[in-house]
Amino acid sequence: MSRKFPTATEFIEGILAGNRMLLSRAITLIESTKKEHQDLAQEIIEGCLPHSGNSVRIGITGVPGVGKSTFIEAFGNYIIEEENRSLAVLAVDPSSSKTRGSILGDKTRMETLSNHPKAYIRPTPTSGSLGGVARSTRETITLCEAAGFNTIFIETVGVGQSETAVHSMVDFFLLLMLAGAGDELQGIKRGIMEMADAIAINKADSGNEAAAKRAMSEYKNALHLFPPTESGWIPKVATCSAFHNKRIAEIWEIVDEFVRHTKTKGFFEKKRKEQANYWLDEAINQELHRAFYDDPGLKKKLAAFRKQVQEEEISSYKAARDLMREFLGK
Amino acid sequence: MSRKFPTATEFIEGILAGNRMLLSRAITLIESTKKEHQDLAQEIIEGCLPHSGNSVRIGITGVPGVGKSTFIEAFGNYIIEEENRSLAVLAVDPSSSKTRGSILGDKTRMETLSNHPKAYIRPTPTSGSLGGVARSTRETITLCEAAGFNTIFIETVGVGQSETAVHSMVDFFLLLMLAGAGDELQGIKRGIMEMADAIAINKADSGNEAAAKRAMSEYKNALHLFPPTESGWIPKVATCSAFHNKRIAEIWEIVDEFVRHTKTKGFFEKKRKEQANYWLDEAINQELHRAFYDDPGLKKKLAAFRKQVQEEEISSYKAARDLMREFLGK
Repeated sequence: MSRKFPTATEFIEGILAGNRMLLSRAITLIESTKKEHQDLAQEIIEGCLPHSGNSVRIGITGVPGVGKSTFIEAFGNYIIEEENRSLAVLAVDPSSSKTRGSILGDKTRMETLSNHPKAYIRPTPTSGSLGGVARSTRETITLCEAAGFNTIFIETVGVGQSETAVHSMVDFFLLLMLAGAGDELQGIKRGIMEMADAIAINKADSGNEAAAKRAMSEYKNALHLFPPTESGWIPKVATCSAFHNKRIAEIWEIVDEFVRHTKTKGFFEKKRKEQANYWLDEAINQELHRAFYDDPGLKKKLAAFRKQVQEEEISSYKAARDLMREFLGK
Repeated sequence: MSRKFPTATEFIEGILAGNRMLLSRAITLIESTKKEHQDLAQEIIEGCLPHSGNSVRIGITGVPGVGKSTFIEAFGNYIIEEENRSLAVLAVDPSSSKTRGSILGDKTRMETLSNHPKAYIRPTPTSGSLGGVARSTRETITLCEAAGFNTIFIETVGVGQSETAVHSMVDFFLLLMLAGAGDELQGIKRGIMEMADAIAINKADSGNEAAAKRAMSEYKNALHLFPPTESGWIPKVATCSAFHNKRIAEIWEIVDEFVRHTKTKGFFEKKRKEQANYWLDEAINQELHRAFYDDPGLKKKLAAFRKQVQEEEISSYKAARDLMREFLGK
């Protein structure tokens, strides 16, 4: 592997100029676990940070079968063509996880979008822990914003743990549902519905329109059971047909209204600051764990303690305290 | 406060002899945040550990209104009177949390049980983080088992984060539900249903019997949507009326069958070992965080970094790494 890397400055200048090849290579560095790659990646991120932030970040979730790729294709094309926006599409499901894997791995499912000059699609990283993927997605957002994309979609399959991570990095969280499939069958987790700023009932077509409308009013009722959001935003419910490109404009109208609503009242910025706090603590958490569990001097002792704890010979708290003394005593 | 404490040995001997006054005082030490109390508590726990473990630990959850106190009263009395068991009832909902508060705070809701010589009821700690309460509940289990109780109920309100904690400290997880209330209205989180080893549909009385039976078959169907458990146990669904003391025996029969099923195949012990592992890692996590966030030398720097991260001047990961270098460089 003797592929020479550009310098950090070359990367940064290229990204700011909208060079996609350099953007993609920088994201690959972000996703790498090699220390030299990470160091270079961090330099690039730092250079891009002052130019980031100027976008609407939208989380899009829904279980397999809900038509997520088709929706993203339709929605993405709409905002590019009709709203004159630019778009980067990212994803947060480590395909190695137990969930049904990466959707964006196959770009061909978003044919128009993936060939559009104003869109950039980045497939899911092929492996890694959720923590790692969440981190690299966050950093990828920074680079995409610096590259000039003013809309970011972050896709996730609504069945795992990824949604909390995505919810914590987006401004707006959109949940795709189907009509008449029932909460159980859709496999969506309750916590996810609580996160939604809007629910779009997709596949409202081919005779399914009435069921979709019924579902719409049911979800509207259900959303009223949740405590109101801090900004006073009441989650909206809409129906659409991504396949037939119907009522897609309404979904964007909701996003737009949300952004205006939260920006007027200062909640947009406030939420981003809270998210920054959250990710700082997450990053500290990751670093603390790495430092502790990778400590070569501790591994043997940890294994011995683990055995004793399993045999109920010592309490887990005493073991933890003893290990901590050793860890910090160095 | 010059109340003299017995020595650790006196505590241990008293607890092993079934002295409830000493048991209660030891639990109070466990719940205390004072260092001297904690040190004494840890000594007591260590002395009790070799005598613990010999019980069936049952988590009982369900939203307010499901009749949890009445159920615990009926179920507890049944296993004491008919199955010749002894029972300690604990709870894991910090009453300071946003959930609807402590159920066990008011012992009068379990009148017979709280006066029964073979039962011991410990009210919820009145404050503390979930992590802290989970820890003290785990340690309280140890003491109660050492004191000879061979059945432990751990109660929790099924609306918060406590259920994962409880699920990780019990052998058997029982979810109480109502008939005809609908998943939405019950406010139960989906994740909780997945944890259940059995669902008991309570208040199957006063003309509600048919609805309860319908709910029973619905839940049976729903449970089939979840992946099978490792031990091959298929979660059971039953109806009962705690208020009228009806079909309570069947619930115990399910617990008993579960214990026999998992013990024969080695899963009972395996799960306890996994739980011990889990709690060791949780304890390490708590200790790591305490050491980091309470570090007086770090506080100022952390605050400064936090501000920079919020203003998007540096990335959260770079900030975390720099802080970590400082933390470990001492």
